Amino acid sequence: MIYLDNASTTMMSEASKRAAANAMDLFGNPSSMHRLGIESEKLVEASKAAVADALSVQKKYVFFTSGGTEANNLAIIGSAKYLKKRGNKIITTKIEHPSVTSAFKALEDDGFEVSYLSCGSDGRIDLAELEEELTEKTTLVSIMAVNNETGIIQPVKEACGLVREKSPLALFHSDCVQAFGKVDCSPRDTGADLVTVSAHKLHGPKGVGALYIKTGKISPIIFGGGQQNGIRPGTENVIGIAGFGAAVQESYGDCSELYDTLKSEIEKNIPSVKINGDPKYASKHVLNVSFVGIRAEILLHTLESSDIFVSTGSACSTHKPQPSPVLTAMGCSKKEIEGAVRFSFDSSLTKEDMIFTAEVLKKEVALLRKYIR
Amino acid sequence: MIYLDNASTTMMSEASKRAAANAMDLFGNPSSMHRLGIESEKLVEASKAAVADALSVQKKYVFFTSGGTEANNLAIIGSAKYLKKRGNKIITTKIEHPSVTSAFKALEDDGFEVSYLSCGSDGRIDLAELEEELTEKTTLVSIMAVNNETGIIQPVKEACGLVREKSPLALFHSDCVQAFGKVDCSPRDTGADLVTVSAHKLHGPKGVGALYIKTGKISPIIFGGGQQNGIRPGTENVIGIAGFGAAVQESYGDCSELYDTLKSEIEKNIPSVKINGDPKYASKHVLNVSFVGIRAEILLHTLESSDIFVSTGSACSTHKPQPSPVLTAMGCSKKEIEGAVRFSFDSSLTKEDMIFTAEVLKKEVALLRKYIR
Repeated sequence: MIYLDNASTTMMSEASKRAAANAMDLFGNPSSMHRLGIESEKLVEASKAAVADALSVQKKYVFFTSGGTEANNLAIIGSAKYLKKRGNKIITTKIEHPSVTSAFKALEDDGFEVSYLSCGSDGRIDLAELEEELTEKTTLVSIMAVNNETGIIQPVKEACGLVREKSPLALFHSDCVQAFGKVDCSPRDTGADLVTVSAHKLHGPKGVGALYIKTGKISPIIFGGGQQNGIRPGTENVIGIAGFGAAVQESYGDCSELYDTLKSEIEKNIPSVKINGDPKYASKHVLNVSFVGIRAEILLHTLESSDIFVSTGSACSTHKPQPSPVLTAMGCSKKEIEGAVRFSFDSSLTKEDMIFTAEVLKKEVALLRKYIR
Repeated sequence: MIYLDNASTTMMSEASKRAAANAMDLFGNPSSMHRLGIESEKLVEASKAAVADALSVQKKYVFFTSGGTEANNLAIIGSAKYLKKRGNKIITTKIEHPSVTSAFKALEDDGFEVSYLSCGSDGRIDLAELEEELTEKTTLVSIMAVNNETGIIQPVKEACGLVREKSPLALFHSDCVQAFGKVDCSPRDTGADLVTVSAHKLHGPKGVGALYIKTGKISPIIFGGGQQNGIRPGTENVIGIAGFGAAVQESYGDCSELYDTLKSEIEKNIPSVKINGDPKYASKHVLNVSFVGIRAEILLHTLESSDIFVSTGSACSTHKPQPSPVLTAMGCSKKEIEGAVRFSFDSSLTKEDMIFTAEVLKKEVALLRKYIR
């Protein structure tokens, strides 16, 4: 099996599985006052410390959520609502993950004025456009660190700098789900006030994520019994949190060679392909290629029969069958979007896997082009 | 160890652990189009079917959440906002779990008019008061099935009947976290439109719950990639969901004998105690006793040294050190509230465990009463 869908989700690491399995026996409620509760609470706190370490931040700023989607929603809806009295102008981009875009759409329905920054054919947002949009009334800016469909690194640090300069009231959020553990996205470096991370993109379990919240200027979106300082109440997902804590302590591994090999093999051997996004800005964990004239879903299933697993755009949008908003924003043609396949890497793969994948692609793409029109 | 804190959380069953551990190897993203994704999706759907079966409802009405807290929030905030144009009058009780009460408080801050029904010394809400409060403008009523601090069963079916009669526009929600699997709370029987359940009170994992949503009249509180019909998006907590599915297929077991034994032993052997709530309405999974003149926290730690684990009121409120709102609503005195201990049962315990617990209680209560004033 050649699993090239790691941006969708990753296999749990042995250490993460072990930690999660051990947590199943530690059954106290972290909120209970007795020893069994305190043992569970300690585990939650240790995992929080591990996530904080991986982000080079203090533990007290880390809050566990049910995943990247909830963390993005808490960051965006929570801070926009908290700062509502100061202004209703908020900014994001056209290439965010659906959980960011949908949260902004919900705020738009609630009366907020949202600017969606455009994206160049290189896959990057335009800082000059951001600068134009920033006003003194801007309260929130959300820009992802690495795009989930193209793997293109966004100029988050520069964007945050502009926000500080032009909109001193605004909070800066960055969805770092695809960057965390792979590309430096520590708020210590970027200056972000809010950072979203997720466990399952990093060999941890699905259904657990975290939000770094520096300022405390946030309204909860879920209310309850006061856990996590009331910012995110509810009995903690102890198993998931334990697995997350273990996963962040491992290194993800470099994927440059895999990216470079697959890219050059495809470019060398298959005609009418287009690499989406400028490789200069690639995180090298994701390669997005348009096989022009082919429908990506068909290619996906063809590859599957050779035990090669890929994705067409983001897996998260398979529920909303519509042309990729990311590739659309980048100005790709309809045919380029229809034929776009996302290969996402993991360092457990080999150069030989990439050569084999390119060979299968060459054969299947030629066959599909011959027989399906 | 005599673990008498099962209303706080339960030990995972072997079947639930096994299912959760197996799910760690099934690593596809349920949203992915390829085989690995479909395998994970099937597991999620099978668990959904198991939860639906346990509730005697159709699978399509069940939505997974990160736990009871989120399910309560989605039910309450989601339906109140959905029905906002029809009215802003909503009703709950003074004895709900903090996640219900806090969600109503948040809606109150948003301009909703909330009635909090009072509670008798028997631990039950008053149906006549509910009837008085119901108007044609009422859009939501939320009443729990079994109270988490006293174990008292609420007249949910009768309440739902009144709502149908007096407030035809209103949705009826019931927090069934403490009832599920123990006391019949199927919406088929009660008529509820929305029902909250949680895995970890039923030998499943922490951090996973579900909301039964009959009508579809609900706005999401978390927005994203379209999973679960967009009602609750986000990559599913596959491990937790698998454990939940296994847990609901086991029976929780009857605790009547445990309840009856502990109650009569305490009443027989320890002076100045008060059973909170009328035993006539007891679910028999929880026994709440006031040891008048003693501080419950001290008794909790004293029992702990004999390896007996209990709770002072609800574990979920240890983050908010304030007198129990439930016992306050029931008209308990300050001393009764300070001395209230919650014993919550599991059928793995024995009658002998209860007799031993009562003996330890007798000794420790006498000592504490002698030395601490």
